[in-house]
Amino acid sequence: MSGISGLVRFDGRRRDQVRPVKVTRNFIKHAEGAVLIEMGDTKVICTASVEEKVPPFLKGKGTGWVTAEYSMLPRSTHERSPREAVKGKQGGRTLEIQRLVGRALRAVTDMTQMGERSIWIDCDVIQADGGTRTASITGAFIALADAFAVLKKKELIKKLPLTDYLAAVSVGKVGGEVMVDLAYTEDSMAEVDMNVVMTGRGRYVEVQGTAERTPFAKQDMDEFLALGWQAIQRLTAIQKELIGALD
Amino acid sequence: MSGISGLVRFDGRRRDQVRPVKVTRNFIKHAEGAVLIEMGDTKVICTASVEEKVPPFLKGKGTGWVTAEYSMLPRSTHERSPREAVKGKQGGRTLEIQRLVGRALRAVTDMTQMGERSIWIDCDVIQADGGTRTASITGAFIALADAFAVLKKKELIKKLPLTDYLAAVSVGKVGGEVMVDLAYTEDSMAEVDMNVVMTGRGRYVEVQGTAERTPFAKQDMDEFLALGWQAIQRLTAIQKELIGALD
Amino acid sequence: MSGISGLVRFDGRRRDQVRPVKVTRNFIKHAEGAVLIEMGDTKVICTASVEEKVPPFLKGKGTGWVTAEYSMLPRSTHERSPREAVKGKQGGRTLEIQRLVGRALRAVTDMTQMGERSIWIDCDVIQADGGTRTASITGAFIALADAFAVLKKKELIKKLPLTDYLAAVSVGKVGGEVMVDLAYTEDSMAEVDMNVVMTGRGRYVEVQGTAERTPFAKQDMDEFLALGWQAIQRLTAIQKELIGALD
Amino acid sequence: MSGISGLVRFDGRRRDQVRPVKVTRNFIKHAEGAVLIEMGDTKVICTASVEEKVPPFLKGKGTGWVTAEYSMLPRSTHERSPREAVKGKQGGRTLEIQRLVGRALRAVTDMTQMGERSIWIDCDVIQADGGTRTASITGAFIALADAFAVLKKKELIKKLPLTDYLAAVSVGKVGGEVMVDLAYTEDSMAEVDMNVVMTGRGRYVEVQGTAERTPFAKQDMDEFLALGWQAIQRLTAIQKELIGALD
Amino acid sequence: MSGISGLVRFDGRRRDQVRPVKVTRNFIKHAEGAVLIEMGDTKVICTASVEEKVPPFLKGKGTGWVTAEYSMLPRSTHERSPREAVKGKQGGRTLEIQRLVGRALRAVTDMTQMGERSIWIDCDVIQADGGTRTASITGAFIALADAFAVLKKKELIKKLPLTDYLAAVSVGKVGGEVMVDLAYTEDSMAEVDMNVVMTGRGRYVEVQGTAERTPFAKQDMDEFLALGWQAIQRLTAIQKELIGALD
Amino acid sequence: MSGISGLVRFDGRRRDQVRPVKVTRNFIKHAEGAVLIEMGDTKVICTASVEEKVPPFLKGKGTGWVTAEYSMLPRSTHERSPREAVKGKQGGRTLEIQRLVGRALRAVTDMTQMGERSIWIDCDVIQADGGTRTASITGAFIALADAFAVLKKKELIKKLPLTDYLAAVSVGKVGGEVMVDLAYTEDSMAEVDMNVVMTGRGRYVEVQGTAERTPFAKQDMDEFLALGWQAIQRLTAIQKELIGALD
Repeated sequence: MSGISGLVRFDGRRRDQVRPVKVTRNFIKHAEGAVLIEMGDTKVICTASVEEKVPPFLKGKGTGWVTAEYSMLPRSTHERSPREAVKGKQGGRTLEIQRLVGRALRAVTDMTQMGERSIWIDCDVIQADGGTRTASITGAFIALADAFAVLKKKELIKKLPLTDYLAAVSVGKVGGEVMVDLAYTEDSMAEVDMNVVMTGRGRYVEVQGTAERTPFAKQDMDEFLALGWQAIQRLTAIQKELIGALD
Repeated sequence: MSGISGLVRFDGRRRDQVRPVKVTRNFIKHAEGAVLIEMGDTKVICTASVEEKVPPFLKGKGTGWVTAEYSMLPRSTHERSPREAVKGKQGGRTLEIQRLVGRALRAVTDMTQMGERSIWIDCDVIQADGGTRTASITGAFIALADAFAVLKKKELIKKLPLTDYLAAVSVGKVGGEVMVDLAYTEDSMAEVDMNVVMTGRGRYVEVQGTAERTPFAKQDMDEFLALGWQAIQRLTAIQKELIGALD
Repeated sequence: MSGISGLVRFDGRRRDQVRPVKVTRNFIKHAEGAVLIEMGDTKVICTASVEEKVPPFLKGKGTGWVTAEYSMLPRSTHERSPREAVKGKQGGRTLEIQRLVGRALRAVTDMTQMGERSIWIDCDVIQADGGTRTASITGAFIALADAFAVLKKKELIKKLPLTDYLAAVSVGKVGGEVMVDLAYTEDSMAEVDMNVVMTGRGRYVEVQGTAERTPFAKQDMDEFLALGWQAIQRLTAIQKELIGALD
Repeated sequence: MSGISGLVRFDGRRRDQVRPVKVTRNFIKHAEGAVLIEMGDTKVICTASVEEKVPPFLKGKGTGWVTAEYSMLPRSTHERSPREAVKGKQGGRTLEIQRLVGRALRAVTDMTQMGERSIWIDCDVIQADGGTRTASITGAFIALADAFAVLKKKELIKKLPLTDYLAAVSVGKVGGEVMVDLAYTEDSMAEVDMNVVMTGRGRYVEVQGTAERTPFAKQDMDEFLALGWQAIQRLTAIQKELIGALD
Repeated sequence: MSGISGLVRFDGRRRDQVRPVKVTRNFIKHAEGAVLIEMGDTKVICTASVEEKVPPFLKGKGTGWVTAEYSMLPRSTHERSPREAVKGKQGGRTLEIQRLVGRALRAVTDMTQMGERSIWIDCDVIQADGGTRTASITGAFIALADAFAVLKKKELIKKLPLTDYLAAVSVGKVGGEVMVDLAYTEDSMAEVDMNVVMTGRGRYVEVQGTAERTPFAKQDMDEFLALGWQAIQRLTAIQKELIGALD
Repeated sequence: MSGISGLVRFDGRRRDQVRPVKVTRNFIKHAEGAVLIEMGDTKVICTASVEEKVPPFLKGKGTGWVTAEYSMLPRSTHERSPREAVKGKQGGRTLEIQRLVGRALRAVTDMTQMGERSIWIDCDVIQADGGTRTASITGAFIALADAFAVLKKKELIKKLPLTDYLAAVSVGKVGGEVMVDLAYTEDSMAEVDMNVVMTGRGRYVEVQGTAERTPFAKQDMDEFLALGWQAIQRLTAIQKELIGALD
């Protein structure tokens, strides 16, 4: 990967460089956790809401639950997209993303230590410029930690029931070049698109790679994973700085 | 109404005083018009999106169309509300509000002068603290004017096809006192709740008054309308300052 | 309003004159209250059905509930309208009207005096000629009173838990003239359309005015309200005659 | 069947006797055909609406279409039934009945002689006391004929494109006795329930027999069909008297 | 019916001859009863699933329940049909068929002898060539018996709670000839189509005859029933051989 | 991976061994391609249906389309699952799988060489025992090739527009051991679950790995991919033998 610093992208970034990250906490006053995460021009509001009950299948088991929902404002995109509430159902892409976000957060949550309560994560994309699902995960983790901090302050739990930091980033191959954190312009031309969800200690939670146009080789895969891990380290460092130690 | 300045409300306002108004334009980069309007703690993103076609019933008639959709983020409210896209339909309240917003904007738009195109207004409540429908109307008007300004700059229309400024405010009776621009705390205790939509020149576009608990008298009605008009003047003055003359 | 008797409408009525009102009680043998109300050519079946339970949010609170549903037969209108059960959802107009009817009836019902039971109001328009929502309210009030009378006869309640008579009427401005109880022909040409819901003692329950074409002035508003109250008096007089005293 | 006149039913009828039939035409002023049919306490509004187009699969084929929809008012029944528009879909029973009504009417309509237009039949049950589907068919035939008469008067068709009169009746076995035109009380106790749809000339259009409790024998079948035909003759005689000759 | 052996059908069958019947039991390893029934080229998987609870309306009554669902694979037909799960609802034909299947099975089940449990019948058409609903009933009866046999083996019931064998067959009039067990080619040309559901002892459970094109005469009816009963005897004989005595 | 042959699984397989594969072509007579694929006890019917039109967004572009739908029979699973057509929508898992199947097939199809037509892939799971989505892809590829062969035989295309063979397999970590082609018993205990979709030449089309319980390390990832590729080679060899060369 010696050539990484050589390529300059349309927005001046290097291949291995994520976009500027900005996190605004307490963005919505009602929610226990409420984060506006901005990765370049992608902006997502991630809230974490505590509900003092669990889904039926967990009732009486002494364990909690974390679940997620995802949506885009109709005009968060270049062209206005029809509102899912008007169409009467959530689309396949939406369901896929919200299932991913929930699953990823549960993988770093010790649900046996959070009491019989649920945390609802809501990721609402205000402005989309590529990487909305990965920004959702990175931001939602902070909102989740903030909600747990509220429960801890109220002495409802003893410590944050989180086993590690959690962030996500996209990697892809565009015009034959492997690069990280694709903006919309890059994403729409990508031959391969991969989303990597990892913990602060470098373990994989989800890896989803798709050949949008041409099937790809093992060496691409290795490069994707290397670049992804670099970016994840940067993102979880930011989380650590904001949240502090997970206890 | 001599006693108006006498009463002090829970947030220090006088009965006839609207909450601090803050308007951020170009809040979302993709939309032709994109306004974040804040009235106190109520925050609504209002976008105006241009679509180069009209609904079937207007095809070929040389006239345009303005329509609106409304939604609340699940955790914009004190308690998290279920997402309408998940429930599979928009609720009665949502439909009522978005019909109101669209109707009100059309009442001040000369649709024969905007070409055969549609403007989609999207009002998405980020944070709710009472008066979300009135803030939506006041903010959407600015977004609509901004979208028309884009069309004018592109020389697709000659002038803004708007006949007047348009704002909305709530008035109500709380603990026997008539007051304007109710915050959630006030709204939830109101005996009567009225929404007034008026033009900059003081003409009525919509008046919707509801006795939440006790039917009310004609003199209350008169006081509501007087207080409403005072507030509308303040709001349309802000619009005029931001947008300039309507031409 | 000296000129009121001067104008003659398309059906020979004066501006301040409601259409002939005909009320048939016990129109459907199964329902506790069942009224066919005819206002001119507008015909609505209003039934009141007693259900011995309340919605979840009221369980155990010792209070009752009144709710309403509204529908139009597909061919109650000039052109056949698609059936909402076929479309798979109730439209915005339907939801708006049934919310209005329920809210209005609750405003004159002392729900703490009706026991833990619900009254379901069903307003089904058989033939539409303008003013279906106002006819629904006026007729539904009688059906509601009849259902309460059944409960009283069975000694399940001691007196009718109604605080006042309740009627509704439309007023509007057509061709520059303010008039009451608009028929479809008038309604379709109206510049302003207002629905007024009032009690027998002249207090407002709902006022909903809409500038269909041109925003309107304060003096129009005053004239609407004056004309509306005149008509309401006539309608509640009919109710009083049919139902008798509310006890 | 010598014993037929021996048995007396709960309402005084003989086994082979249909309930009193009452037909009110032009019941709704907007519809081309609009019949209120009453068979005892069962009351159904049947309208026939002309639409000047055909479904996509018939476009350009020079033939017409007849289709039907069916619904019950929520309180047409002893207990209030939930409104299908609220549930968001038509139930299986509703779909079954409206498919039956449409199919039956098409069987006596020469659709090649009605031009490229559709007739929409709407059967809305106002009050139910057994036999709503058969009353719907008998009434809808008259409404259909009336709508065709309107088209003939407008010289859009030359003659009524109907090949025969059409009526329907239920027969059943109740307490071991075979009887015709079951009222709700009888229907709810029936061991076997059969609906017979026949033409004026005594040919079968639909026969649907169901063993509600006990499978039945061939001789019951024969008795059902004999009793059914007797009743159909009485009903088509009424149709003939009302409509006149089919030309 | 002397001429029955005279006519030869497109596939070489006589008028009174059913297609080759093949029954594969235990076709799906998870289900208590799982039958692949083939009648000529029509292939249906019929499973019977035991659920240890009953619908709400039967709770605590000590009786069981049998219900059925029906579906066709999208490409079981000549042309691919849209999937009902994608359309978001089951069509009228589907609902009609599954109601018929459930009703027919219940007519030969002594539900008071099966304990408070439900049997869910699923009929999924793999390949369609006419007569899918009748094949579903004939196959589902075997699956139901097999599921009851599982319950009996587990000593949850003492004997199969079935009062008789149950099979179904179509009869119809094609090109003026009455014939049994119509294949798709015949069905699509049929003037009359009748489905007959009968028990092993020759009693009727359901008879549904429809004049697809021309109303039919009483003598056709008699011939349909005679031919149907012949075929039912053959089918219930196969059932008897497979299942053995019903105890 | 020296220890691979050491471990013996519950069904006697080695860690790197796929279950017995059985492919039945022309399983449904109507479909252009119709494959029953069995991988151990997992059985999926995969059909490919040709439709002579493309979705709106491709109209007139001279290119074709391949899309997929997926479903499970209610009793294909251990417990009966509710039918999606009855629930009124496809679940998130279903949508995710059918999007995956369609995307994977498109990645090896040269859609510019198939004419303006669509191929609908339907994967219907008859019996589920783990790996239904991967069996669907492997089987659907054969059905797709068969459908293209039909088009080629009809001289509608010159050669099969497929760029490579395509198969899929699951790999996972169960009880600390990495293994391939997980049966349901293994899958339900897996700590990590990965699906690998690859071409005959060993290039990646999709990689989806999920830490069901514990985030996993890079070395696990490498082992998953190695084992996956071994299995893919075996599966594409079978495809090659059945289909022959892709031309």
